[in-house]
Amino acid sequence: LNLVIEEETRLNEVDMTLRRKPLLDRLAGKVGDRPAIWLMRQAGRYLPEYREIRSQTRSFLELCYTPDLATEVTLQPVRRFGMDGAILFSDILVVPDALGWPVRFVEGEGPRLERFSSQRDLSRLDATRLRGHLAPVYETVRRLEATLPGNVALIGFSGAPWTLAAYMVEGGGAREFHAARLLARQEPGLFADLIEQLTDAVVDHLAAQAEAGAEALQIFDSWAGVLPPQELKRWCLDPCSRIVARLKKLCPDVPVILFPRGAGASYVAYARESGASGLGLDTSVPMEWAASMVDRLGGLCLQGNLDPVALLGPPEAMLAEASAIVEAAARRPLIFNLGHGVLPQTSPEAVARLVSHLKSSRS
Amino acid sequence: LNLVIEEETRLNEVDMTLRRKPLLDRLAGKVGDRPAIWLMRQAGRYLPEYREIRSQTRSFLELCYTPDLATEVTLQPVRRFGMDGAILFSDILVVPDALGWPVRFVEGEGPRLERFSSQRDLSRLDATRLRGHLAPVYETVRRLEATLPGNVALIGFSGAPWTLAAYMVEGGGAREFHAARLLARQEPGLFADLIEQLTDAVVDHLAAQAEAGAEALQIFDSWAGVLPPQELKRWCLDPCSRIVARLKKLCPDVPVILFPRGAGASYVAYARESGASGLGLDTSVPMEWAASMVDRLGGLCLQGNLDPVALLGPPEAMLAEASAIVEAAARRPLIFNLGHGVLPQTSPEAVARLVSHLKSSRS
Repeated sequence: LNLVIEEETRLNEVDMTLRRKPLLDRLAGKVGDRPAIWLMRQAGRYLPEYREIRSQTRSFLELCYTPDLATEVTLQPVRRFGMDGAILFSDILVVPDALGWPVRFVEGEGPRLERFSSQRDLSRLDATRLRGHLAPVYETVRRLEATLPGNVALIGFSGAPWTLAAYMVEGGGAREFHAARLLARQEPGLFADLIEQLTDAVVDHLAAQAEAGAEALQIFDSWAGVLPPQELKRWCLDPCSRIVARLKKLCPDVPVILFPRGAGASYVAYARESGASGLGLDTSVPMEWAASMVDRLGGLCLQGNLDPVALLGPPEAMLAEASAIVEAAARRPLIFNLGHGVLPQTSPEAVARLVSHLKSSRS
Repeated sequence: LNLVIEEETRLNEVDMTLRRKPLLDRLAGKVGDRPAIWLMRQAGRYLPEYREIRSQTRSFLELCYTPDLATEVTLQPVRRFGMDGAILFSDILVVPDALGWPVRFVEGEGPRLERFSSQRDLSRLDATRLRGHLAPVYETVRRLEATLPGNVALIGFSGAPWTLAAYMVEGGGAREFHAARLLARQEPGLFADLIEQLTDAVVDHLAAQAEAGAEALQIFDSWAGVLPPQELKRWCLDPCSRIVARLKKLCPDVPVILFPRGAGASYVAYARESGASGLGLDTSVPMEWAASMVDRLGGLCLQGNLDPVALLGPPEAMLAEASAIVEAAARRPLIFNLGHGVLPQTSPEAVARLVSHLKSSRS
């Protein structure tokens, strides 16, 4: 045992020079000597170098659609903190935008879209536009693939069908997404068609990222938590499981992480039924509970789930909380992450402290 | 067995004339012949008779503090639908208001309060004002106790300490309550003192309602779900468990229902540790999961949890969804409710249909 630990320690010391990818190891079910690390929204407004690049563009979407700049902001947190994963800089709403349902970002207010409500709206969606419209995004993935250090995994992503549909029906963000939940009940046929078209688009978008060089794919179902269990199964879990199954055929070597934020007790159904390689836990999930759940259900890489607010508080408490998560996941594959995105008011020093602490921790 | 069923059927038929209270039976662990029924926000804007009364007052709080009117609006849904529970018409924010932290309701925008942030703010809270300030609320409870039909249980309520503190720190509603979560981390001593003062105030407010005639008490922790598990334990579960323990001494015959909205997997800790008689489930909780959980943990009355949006959709689907909840709770004490409050755009006919359906269902 001592020999093994010494071997692992030695490998850890020379981590940056080897072609090892801790993040892909964890998704393959290998526990390793420490958790892999990346953070949702690790590229973004809390970094001065990001704000510098952002100020050169007229809009947030322009940044997403300019390979030079999107590549640069994707790399910034990897360079600064030594993350194990680089997540493509993009937005979940590029999918409806690419289908011909335009999205614009109003400064300080979030996304604005037309409100989707009818069969006529459905007929306006055009799947044939997707790869052309998102060509700059796939170009960004190609550049990242060619640039990233050999130990860093490139993560592509997409919004999940339900979350995309929810923004389309509401015309933007909402607290409870009542309009989307109501359309799903009042016009289940129309809504099922919308979810099916979005499911196809998400598969296409993720497969294109895998073809361009993405090594892992995350599906963000940010608003899964507003649905009751049977609606969550129908509009979130089942479509995401179909996406996972189709991607296993299209790009069998690229693992998928599902992040059904707010799923609560329905996380059990995700662990049992989704077929994903990784399960992203939101802030509210007790890691002990998730760990014993995946043990019962045959194992799965867990990802999460430090409260982003902890990064704004006292450093010692934040590090203790991070350690408690690592300990609760003990001897199981873990990708350390936050339970939600990095907050804009986070100091880069807090993130640096967290990553350095985790790189010296043992899983 | 047939004799028992016939007896129950007969009792059911003459339900309105007997001094039986299905809601209190369920909280005492008795299953009965059907679930007891009440709905969160069953009195409110969706009822024309409520809007009529509300239009006679200048403000929402004036309605809460006027016994004639508050009594009337509490009774409206009981009269119209034959609910098994009448919940006092009031608001969770009357507690800070009574402590000297004034609340006002801005039409269409929700509550506004000063922002709590310091030791000086804490010293402004005055527990000795509470019973005097809320005397009209207790007068409303007394009038209701004297008026309600003998089969209807009178439910008093309070906001939970965390949820009240969250509104006080934010100065109103919020999506994620980051300011409150941050104050709890940056000044845990100050925040613990605030939670302790609010805990005392909640006990006082609930005990006063019990003294005035409330027969069951619900504690709304509407924003429990924004906290990570260990913070939820510290600021939600532990204070609410202390409240339950103190009320068991002050008013041992009055059962307490906890509603920690969004608690997710932490509902397990509530079932195990809180000491409550009833556990309110939010919309996202699978009833099967909750039922098997409380079985393992020694039993507890479950309350919930139809999606309020279901009441806006097709009636048949709504009734099927309600039946599925009743079936999933089979042979366990159940208080049927929504997973969140009745939405203002709900039609009273939908509520009537739901209640009539449930009264003819069998648990």
